[in-house]
Amino acid sequence: MTSRAIDQLETPALLLEQGCMKQNIARMREQLMRLKVGFRPHVKTAKCIEIALAMSGGTPGPITVSTLREADYFADHGFTDILYAVGITPNKMGHVAALLKRDVKLTLILDSLDAAHVLAQAAAALPMPIRALIEIDCDGHRAGILPESPDLLGVAQTLVDGGVVVGGVMTHAGSSYECRSDDALRAMAEQERARTVLAAERLRQAGHAAPVVSVGSTPTALFAQSLNGVTEVRAGVFVFFDLVMAGLGVCSVDDIAISVLTTVIGHQRDHGWTIVDAGWMAMSRDRGTAAQPVDQGFGLVCDVNGNALTDYIVVSANQEHGIVAHRDGATGKALNLPVGSQLRILPNHACATGAQHARYHVVNNSPQITSVWERIGGW
Amino acid sequence: MTSRAIDQLETPALLLEQGCMKQNIARMREQLMRLKVGFRPHVKTAKCIEIALAMSGGTPGPITVSTLREADYFADHGFTDILYAVGITPNKMGHVAALLKRDVKLTLILDSLDAAHVLAQAAAALPMPIRALIEIDCDGHRAGILPESPDLLGVAQTLVDGGVVVGGVMTHAGSSYECRSDDALRAMAEQERARTVLAAERLRQAGHAAPVVSVGSTPTALFAQSLNGVTEVRAGVFVFFDLVMAGLGVCSVDDIAISVLTTVIGHQRDHGWTIVDAGWMAMSRDRGTAAQPVDQGFGLVCDVNGNALTDYIVVSANQEHGIVAHRDGATGKALNLPVGSQLRILPNHACATGAQHARYHVVNNSPQITSVWERIGGW
Repeated sequence: MTSRAIDQLETPALLLEQGCMKQNIARMREQLMRLKVGFRPHVKTAKCIEIALAMSGGTPGPITVSTLREADYFADHGFTDILYAVGITPNKMGHVAALLKRDVKLTLILDSLDAAHVLAQAAAALPMPIRALIEIDCDGHRAGILPESPDLLGVAQTLVDGGVVVGGVMTHAGSSYECRSDDALRAMAEQERARTVLAAERLRQAGHAAPVVSVGSTPTALFAQSLNGVTEVRAGVFVFFDLVMAGLGVCSVDDIAISVLTTVIGHQRDHGWTIVDAGWMAMSRDRGTAAQPVDQGFGLVCDVNGNALTDYIVVSANQEHGIVAHRDGATGKALNLPVGSQLRILPNHACATGAQHARYHVVNNSPQITSVWERIGGW
Repeated sequence: MTSRAIDQLETPALLLEQGCMKQNIARMREQLMRLKVGFRPHVKTAKCIEIALAMSGGTPGPITVSTLREADYFADHGFTDILYAVGITPNKMGHVAALLKRDVKLTLILDSLDAAHVLAQAAAALPMPIRALIEIDCDGHRAGILPESPDLLGVAQTLVDGGVVVGGVMTHAGSSYECRSDDALRAMAEQERARTVLAAERLRQAGHAAPVVSVGSTPTALFAQSLNGVTEVRAGVFVFFDLVMAGLGVCSVDDIAISVLTTVIGHQRDHGWTIVDAGWMAMSRDRGTAAQPVDQGFGLVCDVNGNALTDYIVVSANQEHGIVAHRDGATGKALNLPVGSQLRILPNHACATGAQHARYHVVNNSPQITSVWERIGGW
C-alpha cells in the first residue's frame, strides 16, 4: 500500500503534503507560544488521529471537536480533554453521559437560559459533574450572548443552581473570514479578545471563577498581537490552509497542504475546457472564494507535482466531473493535456473538501505515497 | 433500533419518507412505460441497495453508477448490468478488469480518440471483451462528441480496431437544469432525444450495430413527449426530488422524500435568527436554488412532521451550525421555538445532501422510524 506512487492511485483521491502541514503547525504553535497562550486545536478540519497528534505536539493534548462522533473517536485514541464547540441539545445528553462515564473530560457550550435548564436537568440525573463554557457573541456572526447582556449572569447562575460547573467563556470570531486587510484582521483579533475577556470579567465580578477564556479562528489566531486575558486558542483550518485563507492573506497558495488528485477524462476544445474526474463530490460544493477579490471557482489547478497553474481553475463542477478552464474564459487557452494526465486541485475550503474523502494519501514533496491515514465523518 | 421515534435521534440525521419515495418511483416508471423505453436508474443519488431495488421494481435490473465503488457495491448485491457513466481513465482499468472478471456486465463511456486508444490498449490485455458507449454532446453542457463530428466515426473505428465492443451512444442533458419553463423542458427533452438518435444513425450508416441509445436527466425524462429511437433512460434524482427540481416545476415541495432532522440550539433575537445543529456538513454547501427565481438558501425549513414553513430558510451555514430566518430577513419574524425543538430541512440538491450522510432513517408519514438503510460513499 505505502510503496505506491500517486500515478497508481485511482482518481479522485485526496493528497496531503506532510512537510507543508508540519510547517503550518509549527507556525501556529510558535505564534501561540509567543503570545503565551494555551492551544486547543480544532480537529474538525482533519478528523484524523495522526494529524491531531501532530497538531498537539506528538502526544494527546486538549482538543476541540464539532461532533460527539469526533469526541468518541479521539477519546478512543487517548485524547481526554475535549471541548464540544456546538451548542448542546437534549437529544445529545445520553451520548454526553456515555463520554463522561468513560472519564473523558468533556466540556459543553451553551448560550441561552433554555439550554442552561437542559443542562441543569441532565446534571441532576448524572453521578459526575457537567462542565460548560458560556458562548459569547464577539462579532454578530452567529451564536453567543453579548458580553454586556444580563443573560450572561442569568445563564451562569442557572448553571450553578443546577450543579453545572461554569468553566468560563468561549467565542469564535467567524467574521474574520470576511476581513479584507491585515489591519482589519488585527482589529478583529483584538475585538475577539477584548469582548471575551470582558464577559469573563463580568462573570468573575458576579462571583464565578470562570477560569477559561477560549477564543479562536485561524485568521485571528495568526494576526493577534496580544491575547492578554485569554487562556486558550482554538483553530483548525491552519493545519492545511486553503484558498479562502490564501485570499485573506493568512497564508500563500504554496502553504496549502491538501489537494485532490484528478485525471483528465476529455476535452471540449470549442469551449476551451478540459474535463477531469474531480467534480463536487471530490471538491465539495464550497464556493468560499466567490465573495473574495479572486474567485477560484471550485479550486485552483496545479500540475501533478503541486505547482500552481495560476490561471487555471475548476470553473464548473458536476457530481463526478470538473471543468477546468482558463480563468478569463478564453477558449484559445485550454490546457492541452492528453486523456489520462494527472493534475492536483487546491480546495477553497479544507474542512469541506476533506469531508468528502475517507483517507489522506500522504506525500512528501515527491510522487511516492509514504502513508495512508484514515479520517472519520458523520455524527 | 427500528422501534425508535425521530425525537430520540441525535441530530443532525437524514430522514427518508418512504411513501413519498415510492410515489416518485411509480411516477417515473409509469412515464417510461408510457414512452415504451427501458429504464436504467442512476443510483448515484441514493447509493443504497434498498433504494436501488425499489427503483428497479423489486429485483436487480440495469443501473447507472457514477463511481466504480458503486459498481462494486451494487454488484455485491446482485446487480450485474452496470453502466459507469463517467469518462474512463487509465488508472481505473485495473478496477474495471476486476469487475469484468467477476462477470459484471460493465459498460464504459468515452468521448475522445485518446480514450479510445486507452480502451483498445486495455482490451488487448484482457481475456474478455470491453464494451463502451460513445458519449454525445447534446447541449454544450459538459462532455461528449457532437453528433455531426467526424470524431464520432473515428472513435468508433478505433474501438472496433482495438477489439472494443461499441454498444452505442449515450448523453446527459445537463442543461435541462437551467430551463425556466415547461416548454423549455419539453424542447430540451426533444433536443436530447434527436441529437442522440442522430449520432446512433450516423454510426449505423458507417456499419456499426450501435444498439444502445441511452439518454437521461430527471427533468427531460419527465417532460419528454416522445422517445422514439431511444432504448433506455437514465435518471436518478427523481427518487427523492429536491428544491432545485421543485424550482424547475418538475415536482412540488411535498414530493421531496429526504430531509435533514435538526434541533434548535439557540437564538439571536436581535437578528431574527434561530440557530440549529444542521450546518453545511449536514446540508452540503450546494446552493443550486441561488440561480433560480426562488432562492432557498441552504434549505427550506419544515416543522418536525415535514410540513413546509414556506417563508423560513437556512440563510447561512457553518460546518455544524445553520442559521434559520424568514426569507425576507425581517428580524421581527423569528421562529420562536425553544432550544431542543426539532425541525426538518429540505435539501437544494438531494445528491449532495445525501452524500453527507452514512444512512437513511426511514419513516412513513409518522415519527416512527421503520428501518435504517446504510449508504455508501467514496471511490
